Amino acid sequence: MQHPETGFLPGPRLTLPGAPAGPLAGLSFAAKDLFDVAGTPTGGGNPDWGRTHPVPQAHAGAVERLLAAGASLAGKTITCEISLGILGFNQFFGTPPNPAAPGCLPGGSSSGSASVVAAGLVDTALGTDSGGSVRVPASLCGLYGLRPTLGRVPTTGLLQQAPSFDTAGWFARDAITFGRVAEVLLGEALPAATATEVLLAEDAFALADAEVAAALLPAAERLGARFGGLRRISLGEPGELAAWGSQRNILQRAESWASFGGWIEQHNPTFAFNVARNLAAAAAITPDQVEVARIARRRAVDRARLLLEGGAILCIPTTPFTAPPLGLPLSALDALSARIGVLTSFAGLVGLPQLSLPLGQVGGKPCGLSILGWRGQDARLAAIAAALAAG
Amino acid sequence: MQHPETGFLPGPRLTLPGAPAGPLAGLSFAAKDLFDVAGTPTGGGNPDWGRTHPVPQAHAGAVERLLAAGASLAGKTITCEISLGILGFNQFFGTPPNPAAPGCLPGGSSSGSASVVAAGLVDTALGTDSGGSVRVPASLCGLYGLRPTLGRVPTTGLLQQAPSFDTAGWFARDAITFGRVAEVLLGEALPAATATEVLLAEDAFALADAEVAAALLPAAERLGARFGGLRRISLGEPGELAAWGSQRNILQRAESWASFGGWIEQHNPTFAFNVARNLAAAAAITPDQVEVARIARRRAVDRARLLLEGGAILCIPTTPFTAPPLGLPLSALDALSARIGVLTSFAGLVGLPQLSLPLGQVGGKPCGLSILGWRGQDARLAAIAAALAAG
Repeated sequence: MQHPETGFLPGPRLTLPGAPAGPLAGLSFAAKDLFDVAGTPTGGGNPDWGRTHPVPQAHAGAVERLLAAGASLAGKTITCEISLGILGFNQFFGTPPNPAAPGCLPGGSSSGSASVVAAGLVDTALGTDSGGSVRVPASLCGLYGLRPTLGRVPTTGLLQQAPSFDTAGWFARDAITFGRVAEVLLGEALPAATATEVLLAEDAFALADAEVAAALLPAAERLGARFGGLRRISLGEPGELAAWGSQRNILQRAESWASFGGWIEQHNPTFAFNVARNLAAAAAITPDQVEVARIARRRAVDRARLLLEGGAILCIPTTPFTAPPLGLPLSALDALSARIGVLTSFAGLVGLPQLSLPLGQVGGKPCGLSILGWRGQDARLAAIAAALAAG
Repeated sequence: MQHPETGFLPGPRLTLPGAPAGPLAGLSFAAKDLFDVAGTPTGGGNPDWGRTHPVPQAHAGAVERLLAAGASLAGKTITCEISLGILGFNQFFGTPPNPAAPGCLPGGSSSGSASVVAAGLVDTALGTDSGGSVRVPASLCGLYGLRPTLGRVPTTGLLQQAPSFDTAGWFARDAITFGRVAEVLLGEALPAATATEVLLAEDAFALADAEVAAALLPAAERLGARFGGLRRISLGEPGELAAWGSQRNILQRAESWASFGGWIEQHNPTFAFNVARNLAAAAAITPDQVEVARIARRRAVDRARLLLEGGAILCIPTTPFTAPPLGLPLSALDALSARIGVLTSFAGLVGLPQLSLPLGQVGGKPCGLSILGWRGQDARLAAIAAALAAG
């Protein structure tokens, strides 16, 4: 495994000036190498993707919005191969450093974007989140990072993985910058920070390491004290979160094979073993498995509607642990990925916005507390984060 | 897919002079990049193998024998990744040309060795054959190529795939050169060319394209006329060859996972999709599947003993078709590989020597007729090939 010095792609940086004036004038941003920049191949973290796809003729929608708002592109960043990976390693381009936890994985797949923001090299960075790819590196690198409501931020010009899960999100080191970018990417002024109540999902907290759960609890209690009180609930019946995780995996992988299978059939591309193995498993998913997984998705949607549609916000740990060390064997990495996937699946299945807040720390390493709202409540989550940060 | 100009590894050639005198003085040879050469990393056709393994301190046994006999090493050659592949493509190092069928695959996994011999760049070249990796490129490139009896030629210093299948073989353009190398690698003077009779396996011929079977029949008849008469037999009951093929695959893959699984667990290496997918399938093979496959192996051994132990030789097509064109999609490549595997499995299951003779041609492209004898009859097969070539 290589270890590049920053999360930027190796070689000359791709830079573009932002519009001369605008709400983000003076800010710099990076874009995960899954976002199109006109005139430059989108690499997707895989050595064969770029050379087998046409050079994009237009900027991705999110890139275009940031440039038009005055932010300048400072470079493209390393991603897990074709967005498949949650821990942040890449066997071809190297694993970006985690500035908040040296010697540890950054989380992924938006690994480079989180890394360059955490290192202070840019003010914000675009990532994608299908199964946790913004939320997880935000948690492990100590950043604000949002998975938006499905469809809320344009995904045009994005290397597609799983359309019913794919979102475009972003990172920032502080809630104010995060909110400024939110207004541009959401196209909406931040509303008042309000919530009817704060729900703490005990079954989700029980899946985290005890020290992580303990480190996040005070922030959840502060949220509750400020926004209508803290109520302890369970998202599902005993064992149900794990089952949602496995069924989210079925749905996402089946969609990923629909996205990538034709390319693989034509080009037999190169991958790290674990990526190819997971794609092969995706190819083997049956229509019946997908139908069963859709039932689980409907059940999760029903639960989310009941809990959140009235204006509550939900707290869960973003990740069950802090950044794992580099150099772990594959079976250990697989086990860690599976544990993360159980926590990220609720928002993915339901299409909810989930914002990870850098409010926990264990042994000097960050871990994030996530707040989730009903669909479309992205700006309100950003407003709540800003209000909480303002004290 | 890259297309290098020759089958040699890219970069500076690894050369070594042979002993000043010896039976092979003046001959040049190449070695598949699965054979150790002291002081140089063995690459194994995969970008991660060499850097994660110690540099060999000694030559592979077969390399040592050729050098000691006076042959000079002219370079190392491209191989399918860690010997897994039968058609000869390599997504990292490129697919060696097939000089006998331009624009077509060379066959593999000893693709580069066959290519450089067929191109006249060397007199002979070392390959390995676990599931057909000498026989198949010999057939598709129009060469003499032997899979020796299991254990007959030393496999020390070879990148191990599946120990109960792994053999070290070689290629030559003519039967005389082939026989000279045989005497050195087998450590035995060629005996008289004799056989009690020649068996033509009708069930094996039925698996080949009709034009390939028709192109090979005259050579089989010439063999029969010269060596005790041609008798038409069936190796197995109807459908049994295909079942031997699937069970050989189970056994070989299970052994390949035992060879490579630990390395994969530690390094999560990069592979072409099809190689990783097949390794993932290998990892999923159960002990019960292996036990069932061992039954099939015992049955094949019984059949081979009955047919060949008395001194007969057996004729089958080496491959069911001539060299397929470059640029096929993965599902087509998979289907071709599966068809080949049915024909190569008998020798692999039983540990028999199988020598492919370049005696067929269809549409200007070569195809090989294979002769098989009982275990240990390698030198006699070489003698028969020389006698037949002498007319």
